[in-house]
Amino acid sequence: MYSFCSPALAAVWQANSLYSSQTPDTSGDTFLWIALAVGLLSLIAAVVFARNVLANDAGTPEMRLISDAIREGAEAFMKRQYSAIAMLAVVIAVILYIGYYASAYSRPFANKVVISFIIGAACSALSGYSGMFVSIRANIRVASAARTSIGKALQTALRGGAVTGLVVVSLSLLGIGILFLVFGGLKDPQQAPYQLVGFGFGASLVALFAQLGGGIYTKAADVGADLVGKVEAGIPEDDPRNPAVIADLVGDNVGDCAGRGADIFESTAAENVGAMILGAALYPVFGVKGILFPLVVQAINLVASIIGVTIVHSSETEDPMHALNRGYYVTSLLALAGFAVAVKFMLSGHWWLLGSGICGIITSFLFVRITEYYTETRFRPVRSIADASNTGPATNIITGIAVGMETPALPVLVIGAALLLSYYFGVRGLEDATGISNYAKGIYGTAIATMGMLSSAAYILAMDTFGPITDNAGGIIEMSDQPHAVREKTDRLDAAGNTTKALTKGYAIGSASLAAFLLFSAYLESIHAIVARRVADSGGVLPAGWSFSNVNLASVPVFVGALLGAMLTYLFSSLAIKAVGRAAQFVIEDVRAQFRENPGIMAGTSKPDYGRCVRIVTTAALKQMMVPGLLAVAMPLVVGISFRHLSGLFGVQQLSGVPTLHGLPINLTGAEAVAGLLMVGTISGILLAMFMNNAGGAWDNAKKYIETGAHGGKRSEAHKAAVVGDTVGDPFKDTAGPSLHVLIKLLATVTLVLAPLFV
Amino acid sequence: MYSFCSPALAAVWQANSLYSSQTPDTSGDTFLWIALAVGLLSLIAAVVFARNVLANDAGTPEMRLISDAIREGAEAFMKRQYSAIAMLAVVIAVILYIGYYASAYSRPFANKVVISFIIGAACSALSGYSGMFVSIRANIRVASAARTSIGKALQTALRGGAVTGLVVVSLSLLGIGILFLVFGGLKDPQQAPYQLVGFGFGASLVALFAQLGGGIYTKAADVGADLVGKVEAGIPEDDPRNPAVIADLVGDNVGDCAGRGADIFESTAAENVGAMILGAALYPVFGVKGILFPLVVQAINLVASIIGVTIVHSSETEDPMHALNRGYYVTSLLALAGFAVAVKFMLSGHWWLLGSGICGIITSFLFVRITEYYTETRFRPVRSIADASNTGPATNIITGIAVGMETPALPVLVIGAALLLSYYFGVRGLEDATGISNYAKGIYGTAIATMGMLSSAAYILAMDTFGPITDNAGGIIEMSDQPHAVREKTDRLDAAGNTTKALTKGYAIGSASLAAFLLFSAYLESIHAIVARRVADSGGVLPAGWSFSNVNLASVPVFVGALLGAMLTYLFSSLAIKAVGRAAQFVIEDVRAQFRENPGIMAGTSKPDYGRCVRIVTTAALKQMMVPGLLAVAMPLVVGISFRHLSGLFGVQQLSGVPTLHGLPINLTGAEAVAGLLMVGTISGILLAMFMNNAGGAWDNAKKYIETGAHGGKRSEAHKAAVVGDTVGDPFKDTAGPSLHVLIKLLATVTLVLAPLFV
Repeated sequence: MYSFCSPALAAVWQANSLYSSQTPDTSGDTFLWIALAVGLLSLIAAVVFARNVLANDAGTPEMRLISDAIREGAEAFMKRQYSAIAMLAVVIAVILYIGYYASAYSRPFANKVVISFIIGAACSALSGYSGMFVSIRANIRVASAARTSIGKALQTALRGGAVTGLVVVSLSLLGIGILFLVFGGLKDPQQAPYQLVGFGFGASLVALFAQLGGGIYTKAADVGADLVGKVEAGIPEDDPRNPAVIADLVGDNVGDCAGRGADIFESTAAENVGAMILGAALYPVFGVKGILFPLVVQAINLVASIIGVTIVHSSETEDPMHALNRGYYVTSLLALAGFAVAVKFMLSGHWWLLGSGICGIITSFLFVRITEYYTETRFRPVRSIADASNTGPATNIITGIAVGMETPALPVLVIGAALLLSYYFGVRGLEDATGISNYAKGIYGTAIATMGMLSSAAYILAMDTFGPITDNAGGIIEMSDQPHAVREKTDRLDAAGNTTKALTKGYAIGSASLAAFLLFSAYLESIHAIVARRVADSGGVLPAGWSFSNVNLASVPVFVGALLGAMLTYLFSSLAIKAVGRAAQFVIEDVRAQFRENPGIMAGTSKPDYGRCVRIVTTAALKQMMVPGLLAVAMPLVVGISFRHLSGLFGVQQLSGVPTLHGLPINLTGAEAVAGLLMVGTISGILLAMFMNNAGGAWDNAKKYIETGAHGGKRSEAHKAAVVGDTVGDPFKDTAGPSLHVLIKLLATVTLVLAPLFV
Repeated sequence: MYSFCSPALAAVWQANSLYSSQTPDTSGDTFLWIALAVGLLSLIAAVVFARNVLANDAGTPEMRLISDAIREGAEAFMKRQYSAIAMLAVVIAVILYIGYYASAYSRPFANKVVISFIIGAACSALSGYSGMFVSIRANIRVASAARTSIGKALQTALRGGAVTGLVVVSLSLLGIGILFLVFGGLKDPQQAPYQLVGFGFGASLVALFAQLGGGIYTKAADVGADLVGKVEAGIPEDDPRNPAVIADLVGDNVGDCAGRGADIFESTAAENVGAMILGAALYPVFGVKGILFPLVVQAINLVASIIGVTIVHSSETEDPMHALNRGYYVTSLLALAGFAVAVKFMLSGHWWLLGSGICGIITSFLFVRITEYYTETRFRPVRSIADASNTGPATNIITGIAVGMETPALPVLVIGAALLLSYYFGVRGLEDATGISNYAKGIYGTAIATMGMLSSAAYILAMDTFGPITDNAGGIIEMSDQPHAVREKTDRLDAAGNTTKALTKGYAIGSASLAAFLLFSAYLESIHAIVARRVADSGGVLPAGWSFSNVNLASVPVFVGALLGAMLTYLFSSLAIKAVGRAAQFVIEDVRAQFRENPGIMAGTSKPDYGRCVRIVTTAALKQMMVPGLLAVAMPLVVGISFRHLSGLFGVQQLSGVPTLHGLPINLTGAEAVAGLLMVGTISGILLAMFMNNAGGAWDNAKKYIETGAHGGKRSEAHKAAVVGDTVGDPFKDTAGPSLHVLIKLLATVTLVLAPLFV
């Protein structure tokens, strides 16, 4: 039995919640300054990479024409998207402030929480934007470089991607680190982490809308362009006569670059805040160093990733994936070494904890490999889908779904093993720490595993952004009529980019699963701290040994909360998928209208109006992102508050051992139901996301495999069937799946920030 | 906070577990005899219905030829399937016996548990078989009757279906009632329910394999017949030239009739056993009557359903669904009245508890209506899929999946409301009962809601079996070249049958969701009773106020168990879907071979070898059902036992308040991890099943809607796209979805029966 029930831990909590006034431990302050300095230097490194990329040749005028159109479209979308999100954020900030202000208990934090919310949202938006800023300029440089050297093109694309990676991770580090400083973290290190919850929520909120809006945009444009272009008009992909072709290329940037940037920003932010809250619980053992450890790990991540990116070189004949993987391995090894040094100096050389970190690094490696197995053409799953395409689209779809539903099996075993092992290492590592429950030690072990997993995040993100950059480069080459040999080079890069995109999705969901546990614990601690404070304020004492830990699924409100959480993941996915369909409808109609209004387009004598199509998708995508996005934010709020009030109906039972306030037991029904929603919603979301991401990736590559000549190649019936599967997979893997990653982290941060309203 | 923590309830448990030797309450014995008598009379009524159906005209010789072929195929499959299941059951019985015998604590129950397991398995098999026995003979009578009167045909089909309904429910009632008697229930009513857990497991095991094997068979034959017949050879559905056509018709019987029969048998059995265990906890309030209440409700169900079936008449022009719904409403009202009488005499007129029962009846009604909304052509969802078919198969599939993922939303709200309300009614109804915790009262309320929901099970099952009978009748008419007017009549019946099949799937998953909670509680009580007994046997005492209730998702083993449970539902679905694909491959190859070997088949000059195809599907389906079936049984066992032993690794914590055995805390890690697996597996299974059942039903009807002339009708591109969706939906709605219903109940019964091995 692992439970919070240890009186010792409860005492620590109580200490936390009562603003412990003992002299603060200042031994770790240097580490904070080092981490902040590394964060700042990494931002500079990002600028260097960006200048490096931009210094490259910007291609021929025809190429620039296309690239400019993409850039303008992407910038117009981002501008409108971020305006919409900013308005939403302001509204939510006001609601948050009112919610916090309404109760005397939470009022003192209202300012800090809202400020950190706004800063989190702004940093998240900035990291999404700056990544895209470079990638829409890198695409043409990569295309241009591909005319001479594939190695040069690869390097340019990866460095372009590295800008995103570095900006995302360093903004997360700087934002949290500076807020920690400003909120008096050096004076009162145990209290400050609780006030950072707003930062995580701000990051999540922006990430959700960025991913949803971008995901809807990219697939609406893609599906729309394909359905009218390829199917109705019979013109190839990326054909300049298709009015939606620029919108499609813009989509790769706003969906993949900006979306995944915000996603990983949210991951690191949520994980840092959660781990700092858990570190506060271990204050008696590690002092402030335990709280600052996550920030130092991020600094290591930055250094390791910069080196990893820098060393990537590729010959003209090598498989681009080999070069990229080499960089990944170097980054992982460097991160591991850095981790060991940090454990030595910050965690008093508790080597078992390094074991937890290694668990995380291995988990990251295994997730990437499992995703590879399910989505690469070399292996059985994709081959089986290609085989099934011989008997038509129905069997292609059935097999793809069966493959998708198989995919969660291995990752779940890996996550389970990682959690159990890192928990064990945590308990073993802190064996000699007295006064701390095994549970708190174990959970800190899982938190360190999560840090280990995220310790190569910047490099992974660079690889991810490599995808849309090379995809765009390919599009530019295709549309500007370059020689076939150049096209072949960009095709090879593009194939590697498709792989890295699939792999990083595996990585993102893996880190979300590992972080989930840490975030649950942070939520429970947060509720506990609130209860302890209220009881203390009212002059009472907590019952001996009591802690808020009973997320008991056998209780009706928790079970109903759990059902609602799981249902939310389905409804959210359904809305996201439908949103793509609706937005795509507008694209289809516009393309048909353009063909009708201007017959010169198909004849090749006049240019289509790319901008009109871009504007139409922009409007449609932004409109469609609202309902699923708001649903995700509103549901935990509604459940928490309504169950809190409903509980009266059920006559809260007088249990011995529940804290009382002015003689009445504290009503925890709302907080418990939300915990059920959060935990089971997370589990369901993880599985659903794996199903959709991997099914989508497998369908995509089954089509590509057939295009390489299998089962009759490009003109065969099998290929037609595979195109159907690929189209079905598009909203799975690029809209609903990635949005679910963000959703589950949003659930964690929204419950954390709203915790005071549930009790 | 609703928790088991009441000392009073703990005392009741302890009393249970120590074989309370107080004088038993005999006031309820009469009710047992009445229930058993009704069960027996209902079996007789089933025989009367069967004779009534068989007395009808058995059609022309051509029709008989087809009907005989279906009958022979179905019987051959059932024989081989049940032999395979019997062998498995024997192996599992031996393992169960060894498991129980291995520990001194469970050894005394080994005999009873294994005997009730065997009887449960036998009754389950018998109810599956007898239902099919009648329906494969009713099909031709319905076909024959349709030549003169649709009203007569409808009545024949419903009465044929009623045989299944009555046999299933009365065998469940008789089996449990007689075992209760034999196990000394009248002398020691609090102990006997625990010994019935084997019955539920036996029922589930057979149900799982019956549904899986039948589900794989039916869809492999269907998909195989369609792909070669319709797509490759271009001949219509049910064309006698297709060698797989008989296998397809056989499939409707073995998949739908036998499968759903076993499914509902399992529902009633699991629910009865679970509710009796909870009734035992309320022994101080209601005495033996509280334990026998579920059996009496089943008796009411039988009487109400017999009347409901008898009154169904239809004119020649009426929509068959209206007539069927009339019978459903009458049955529900009668069941409600009977429920009220039972509450008056058995539950001392606690009218709030009738409120719980009404919750269940309303839930059943709402589930049926929601399913209707999502799967009938009149409403938006199916229309949206039909609309999307205009742009091809990809958009048809995407829309269908989006619709399917939307479908859990409303049912989850209904289930949540039903659980909360019936819990509340339970607490209110038993307000004056002292010495019982609110939790026990509330849970009993939810148990009564489940009984209310299942109080029309026999009628629902009759409606369900109506589906394959009319489907078969249509096939016989088609293949024997009857006039178009007759075909039209059977088409109308067939359409109604498709609707009833979809609705009863909604009903089945609804009752499974409502019953889930009851079964969790039974598992927790069971573990509690085991711990209490062991502690008492070792001369110790349970700590004051302790109870086994902490299914704490914030504990790592529980969370990992939960992840594994949810993953199981995906992996199981994947295996089930793949099994269909593999088995269908054999069908396709055989049909192609037959066309090749005998060109006379397509020319219509010679008959295909139907039997060969039937044998091939039989072999393939039985082989393919093994892996998913065994996975479902093995997983809880492996998780429970391995976590129990792994816990050593984590150093079980000395928590104050955990019971000790010889000075060491009892190791509950295995039992807790299994509870997590069970609960979250159930939630994930419910949602996944709803998604797949409803998406499948909606695709099917979108195709039918287009066939009525929408979007260009039968020869249009939209129709082609809709056929793809329909084919994809087939294994969803007829294999994986229904098998998931059975899986979640199996998880509940297997954990209940294996509980002694986890502690």
